[in-house]
Amino acid sequence: MPNIYLALLHYPVMNKNGDVITSAITNLDLHDIARAAKTYGVKGFYVVTRLADQIVLAKRIIGHWTHGAGADYNPARRRALELIRIEESLADVIQHIAGQENVQPKTVATCAKRFDDAISYDKMSGLMSNGKPHLLVFGTAWGLSEELIRQADYILEPITGQTGYNHLSVRSAASIILDRLIGR
Amino acid sequence: MPNIYLALLHYPVMNKNGDVITSAITNLDLHDIARAAKTYGVKGFYVVTRLADQIVLAKRIIGHWTHGAGADYNPARRRALELIRIEESLADVIQHIAGQENVQPKTVATCAKRFDDAISYDKMSGLMSNGKPHLLVFGTAWGLSEELIRQADYILEPITGQTGYNHLSVRSAASIILDRLIGR
Repeated sequence: MPNIYLALLHYPVMNKNGDVITSAITNLDLHDIARAAKTYGVKGFYVVTRLADQIVLAKRIIGHWTHGAGADYNPARRRALELIRIEESLADVIQHIAGQENVQPKTVATCAKRFDDAISYDKMSGLMSNGKPHLLVFGTAWGLSEELIRQADYILEPITGQTGYNHLSVRSAASIILDRLIGR
Repeated sequence: MPNIYLALLHYPVMNKNGDVITSAITNLDLHDIARAAKTYGVKGFYVVTRLADQIVLAKRIIGHWTHGAGADYNPARRRALELIRIEESLADVIQHIAGQENVQPKTVATCAKRFDDAISYDKMSGLMSNGKPHLLVFGTAWGLSEELIRQADYILEPITGQTGYNHLSVRSAASIILDRLIGR
C-alpha cells in the first residue's frame, strides 16, 4: 500500500486576481476527495482551515457521516469520511504526520499552472514507491499561493488535456492525480 | 481531437436498494463534469432528466453561467457549461448526436461493478481512436440500471484502487475515466 497523505488547503490560496485569501469549505470537496482517497488507499485526508466557524462546520459535516444518522444510512460514506482530520495549518498537518510516521513527509504541491521545475507523474510515482510518507497538497479557490508552492519538496506537473483548458475542479484534479500516481 | 460525447443520466438509475428511480440534479455534477469534459475536448455533455421542474432548474443553472452574471464573472466556467445540453432520455441524446455526426454513436456504459464482458481502458481507448462518435454514459445515485448497462455497445471496467472500496462520486469517476481514455 502507498504511504500517502492528502491535504486540502483553504489558506493560503488565491482568488481570481491572485490575492492570497482564506476560502470557505465546500461540502462536496470533503465527500468527493475522501471517497477518492479511500479508493486509492490514502492514509489520511487533512482539511486545513484557520477559521473557527469553518472548523465547527467541517466537524459537523464529518460527524453526521461518521457518528450521526449518515453513518447508519451509508456505511461506505462513513468509511471515507473517517479519513478526514481538521488542522489549522499545513505546518500542523506535517507535524501530525511526523508524529505518526517518525519522519517528516515529503510535500508535493499541485497546481494548474506549469512550473519550470515541475515533476512528471511517472517520476513522482516512482519516488513515492520508496514507502516513505508523501503529502499531496491541494488548494481550493484559484489554487495554492505561489509562495507555498515554492516551499514544497516537489511541484507536480499540471493536468492537461488536448485543449489548453486548465480549469478542473479540485475534486476532479485530486481524483485524477491519485489515479495517475497510485491507480495503476 | 477525440470524437467523444458524454451523458449523465438521472433516469433510469438505481437507489441503494437496487430499485430503478429518477434522481435529482446536483449542481456540482454539471460544473465538475463540464469542466472535465472541456479539459479533454469532449464535444458535448448531455444532462438527461425527464422531470419538467428539474429541466427548468438545470436550464437556470446553465443560463446563469453561460448568459447571466456568471458568464462575465468567470468566462472559463462559461466555456465549460456551454457544452451542456438537456435531453429527456438516452434515446434523445443518441438521436441528437446522430443528427450532428450522420451516424449513431457507439454507447459506452460505466459502472462501479464488474461485468464479465467489461472492456479495459486500453482497449476502449484504442477503439475510440477510430474517429467515430462514442458516447460515455454515466449514472447518478447508485448508478445506471442494469438493463440500460446491458443494452450499451460496451461496458467499461470499473475503476479500482488498491482497496476494494468502489464508491467514487460520479464527478470523480467521470474525471478519471476521461483521463484514462483520452488524457495521455
